[in-house]
Amino acid sequence: MKIIDTKVYNQGILKSYTEYWVFNTRKRREFIHITRQIQEAVDKSGIKEGFVLVSAMHITASVFINDNEEGFLYDLEKFLERLAPYGKHPDGEEYRHHSTGEDNCDAHLKNIIVHHQVVVPITEGRLDLGPWQRIFYGEFDGQRNKKVIVKVVGF
Amino acid sequence: MKIIDTKVYNQGILKSYTEYWVFNTRKRREFIHITRQIQEAVDKSGIKEGFVLVSAMHITASVFINDNEEGFLYDLEKFLERLAPYGKHPDGEEYRHHSTGEDNCDAHLKNIIVHHQVVVPITEGRLDLGPWQRIFYGEFDGQRNKKVIVKVVGF
Amino acid sequence: MKIIDTKVYNQGILKSYTEYWVFNTRKRREFIHITRQIQEAVDKSGIKEGFVLVSAMHITASVFINDNEEGFLYDLEKFLERLAPYGKHPDGEEYRHHSTGEDNCDAHLKNIIVHHQVVVPITEGRLDLGPWQRIFYGEFDGQRNKKVIVKVVGF
Repeated sequence: MKIIDTKVYNQGILKSYTEYWVFNTRKRREFIHITRQIQEAVDKSGIKEGFVLVSAMHITASVFINDNEEGFLYDLEKFLERLAPYGKHPDGEEYRHHSTGEDNCDAHLKNIIVHHQVVVPITEGRLDLGPWQRIFYGEFDGQRNKKVIVKVVGF
Repeated sequence: MKIIDTKVYNQGILKSYTEYWVFNTRKRREFIHITRQIQEAVDKSGIKEGFVLVSAMHITASVFINDNEEGFLYDLEKFLERLAPYGKHPDGEEYRHHSTGEDNCDAHLKNIIVHHQVVVPITEGRLDLGPWQRIFYGEFDGQRNKKVIVKVVGF
Repeated sequence: MKIIDTKVYNQGILKSYTEYWVFNTRKRREFIHITRQIQEAVDKSGIKEGFVLVSAMHITASVFINDNEEGFLYDLEKFLERLAPYGKHPDGEEYRHHSTGEDNCDAHLKNIIVHHQVVVPITEGRLDLGPWQRIFYGEFDGQRNKKVIVKVVGF
């Protein structure tokens, strides 16, 4: 490992800027690319240095960073369905969560694997992402209103 | 996706507020609901805008957000035990970590799946969580003192 | 749970400090211990209170916290290979991502499990980690230049 660049800034005025988004997907499961909209929120905030937290406000949806490549997104859904299948535990035991009347225990478990949030660094007003990093909203139990919070804190 | 609300604040005085908690669970594995205590830490901090990091200080315990529903917590434990079983690798190979004398490799792997931390947004002095989001401490190798750090940074 | 310690600081001047690192591993997969280098970045920042985000800038590499124990790192690699195997889906279906010419879909999925980032609290100028917590860069598709961003924000 070697350090290839360093940047230092001192403060002006600390700010927070918060947006609340709502998604209502047509399909039960969808991956939605949101990098551009996150950059737009950062632009509106006026914040040049800091962090933006992008966090699903639900326990059956995720926010993650990976590849905006259709084949990969297919593979990811298949992978998640293998690890946390819809319907029941792989040994045939019913999900106990379903005794509440819900049928979405797999969506909760997919959320556990993928996680519900990312913290993206902001440098000189830009999302400081690598060349292939793209931010996604991952819906696992959609077709109803679901919220995401985008909170920028910095200066 | 549409934006449904936006909030902007400029700063007063930046603050940090840090608490260290200790857990000693009766069982080897337990999920402990800690949302109220995190809100209390934020209240004590006086911080109205920013982030609270809630992070296990151990590599065999987790902090996560999901559903405070007994059936789901049973399903989650079963799910984790299937992916990262106690005792040995599923193909029968011993965990090499156990050659150190430990018997908790499954707890390390469960920590990898569930993660050890969450960053919760604070808006107007409140944990800015969705209606079903609850914060948990997940113990995978308890019955001894384990620590969590709660660090609030904001203004 | 009981609170065992509390610390409060008010601000001087908010700062950000950012380093970009590059790794080029000899093997396709490697775990590299980077705790000391993160502390050095915090030292250079002069920041005493805040957060350091350590984030892979790639979608086939991870940053995580766990045990610096050789046996465990072997077990972790075996665990990840079982959940997200190299080559194809476990049912024999080709990874669709590979139709792009890539052969690294397993590395993307390993990144999903392990995650690409950690947020480490900084208290009194030190990484505020537990006694066994060590920070790692996890490479899943190396032997080429890969970047990590280390961003410290605080005061």
